[in-house]
Amino acid sequence: MAAGIGHIQSNFYEHGGAYALNSGQSLPEMRLAYEMYGELNHAKDNVVLLFHALSGSQHAAGTNNTSPEVGDRWTTECHEGWWSEFVGPGLAVNTDRFCVICVNYLGGCYGSTGPASVDPRTKKPYGASFPQISASDIVDSQMALLDHLGVDRLHAVIGNSVGGMLALNLAVRYPERVTIVVPVATAINVSQLQRILVLEQIVAVENDLNFRGGDYYEGDPPNRGLALARMISHKTFISLRTIERRAQRGVVQQRDDQLAWYRVDTPLESYMLHQGNKFVNRFDANTYLRILDVWQKFDLLKQTGASSHVELFERCKHQKYLVFSISSDVCFYPDQQRELVSVLKAANVPNMYLTVHSEKGHDSFLLEPELYTPHLHYTLNGA
Amino acid sequence: MAAGIGHIQSNFYEHGGAYALNSGQSLPEMRLAYEMYGELNHAKDNVVLLFHALSGSQHAAGTNNTSPEVGDRWTTECHEGWWSEFVGPGLAVNTDRFCVICVNYLGGCYGSTGPASVDPRTKKPYGASFPQISASDIVDSQMALLDHLGVDRLHAVIGNSVGGMLALNLAVRYPERVTIVVPVATAINVSQLQRILVLEQIVAVENDLNFRGGDYYEGDPPNRGLALARMISHKTFISLRTIERRAQRGVVQQRDDQLAWYRVDTPLESYMLHQGNKFVNRFDANTYLRILDVWQKFDLLKQTGASSHVELFERCKHQKYLVFSISSDVCFYPDQQRELVSVLKAANVPNMYLTVHSEKGHDSFLLEPELYTPHLHYTLNGA
Repeated sequence: MAAGIGHIQSNFYEHGGAYALNSGQSLPEMRLAYEMYGELNHAKDNVVLLFHALSGSQHAAGTNNTSPEVGDRWTTECHEGWWSEFVGPGLAVNTDRFCVICVNYLGGCYGSTGPASVDPRTKKPYGASFPQISASDIVDSQMALLDHLGVDRLHAVIGNSVGGMLALNLAVRYPERVTIVVPVATAINVSQLQRILVLEQIVAVENDLNFRGGDYYEGDPPNRGLALARMISHKTFISLRTIERRAQRGVVQQRDDQLAWYRVDTPLESYMLHQGNKFVNRFDANTYLRILDVWQKFDLLKQTGASSHVELFERCKHQKYLVFSISSDVCFYPDQQRELVSVLKAANVPNMYLTVHSEKGHDSFLLEPELYTPHLHYTLNGA
Repeated sequence: MAAGIGHIQSNFYEHGGAYALNSGQSLPEMRLAYEMYGELNHAKDNVVLLFHALSGSQHAAGTNNTSPEVGDRWTTECHEGWWSEFVGPGLAVNTDRFCVICVNYLGGCYGSTGPASVDPRTKKPYGASFPQISASDIVDSQMALLDHLGVDRLHAVIGNSVGGMLALNLAVRYPERVTIVVPVATAINVSQLQRILVLEQIVAVENDLNFRGGDYYEGDPPNRGLALARMISHKTFISLRTIERRAQRGVVQQRDDQLAWYRVDTPLESYMLHQGNKFVNRFDANTYLRILDVWQKFDLLKQTGASSHVELFERCKHQKYLVFSISSDVCFYPDQQRELVSVLKAANVPNMYLTVHSEKGHDSFLLEPELYTPHLHYTLNGA
């Protein structure tokens, strides 16, 4: 499925000196891990920036079996790019024509500076002392990388899920620097249900005594809490019908060290526990909390000072939007993209709005390239 | 709102000697805490048995400000009966005519024998050693109480939520002992979503290091885990719209000792944390897990040996059912009652089936007596 991208390694962008955050805090140094697919053209106007989702990485396409900077966390689950069926020669995002860039979020755990990175001042991991990061900080750090590469204007920005919120942040905060905006299964606002589910996940991690406020790198990590957090979110990523189908292929089992009293009785329960347990091998709990915090506090109005979304998006009239909803999505409900599109319409921003009908739920955007490819291809090439 | 029931104290039923459970295990002694409202008539045929829900108690109606057997756990939240607006003279369940009995579940924490009770053999709380309890055990223990009272046949059994599952267990396992069955916002099967949410709550409690497999009575209880479990379930009890409305009246605050890193930012988050925190004062984590386990393993076919629900309910043709759905229920979705009713119809069991349209979600059955009273009154008096 690598479809021509083949083997690929992450690149690293090192920002010289201290890096200022929007909060007024700063990092003593800032590094981003990123991957590039396709060639940057002479005019440097063929770049498609791709934001990964909550637990994704810069490794969007091709195969990367080792990542020395990441270590054990680069499990086999990470080897294949998460959008390999979408990004490549002749695919939805055609690397014969476009130069695709995907960057691990600032605060991430796949090579970019994050809570698990070593603070050069103390020679120890930041842990709890890592400053709070916002959506704007993640976007700004990637704009700094684009500056470094000499890319003034993006051909397109694409973001799925939480990545779509970052794409919207970029679009309204750097309106002159992007032409096409593709928000997939995302939102302009955090819904009440999302806020509740994000809080549950945060409490699940913080309740783990191993968390120690985030300073756990010298001891056991808060794996039980992180696994529960992942269980809580997993049910919103995959439709219940798909979970049920997957679970039916499994068996009833539970790890001896996980639950002292309760005995699971159904393949469904074993499946959910397994989803949580396998996640902790590839992700850092602090990074998870930091990105949940970015999600929870996402607010385009606060982050721009605009008085309304319609007013805010009026600066985007020269952009073109391709908005995707997934019919069975219970993480970012279709109502949320409808809200985005009604704002775009009110602000007279050109847009195309599609609902893909899928039984797979939110993760359809990872699993069903055929549902997205024709329109992605048309919009990216036609503009 | 006590509507004539006034002050009331729990009664206790002491089962003589060891009590055998359906699993083959037994308890060295068994006690049930229960309340009675109205007079048992001479024929002893005017009893309405009421099953409380997951976190309820025997205190369904009237006021009870002290419960010496329960101690600190009998908080002010417990003082007013949870169905005081439904049970009383002239109310939906009219105590001028009926003798209403409500019993704290076996395994409960409000006076019935449960994990927090002292094991007479060790003089210490049972904790982890308390045997596993099933829906049939809870029902059978209450039938033993009815035997003790000389009540052969119930006029009606009413159960809300998980209590409705127990009412159905009673109806099919003791078909000759009940005439009217009122399942409210309940189900004949555990749904996939319920199974996932129940598991999340179990893991939340077990993840708390204070849980110690259930043997925590000599140390700190697993309050952080229990509070998270309650947060997880609370969002299914109250509609999101109602949660939002309630939260808007609140302020942004969090307890200093709860979250080390994360800072809440919205009244909604404070509201959810508060729901969790206040619950731990009035409930025992072991009882919570035991009742979740009863819910998770609820299976009328396994518990009766029947080969299908239709076959099972054919023994209930002489009973009359009044089934309630709540339009905004996301704990027991209306689809689940529809499934029950289709079984009743296929088995030729007389039934009346109503959906109350409410914005309040699952807890409507506690909050909106006017939506249920006319039909409850009609069915209980007309039969």
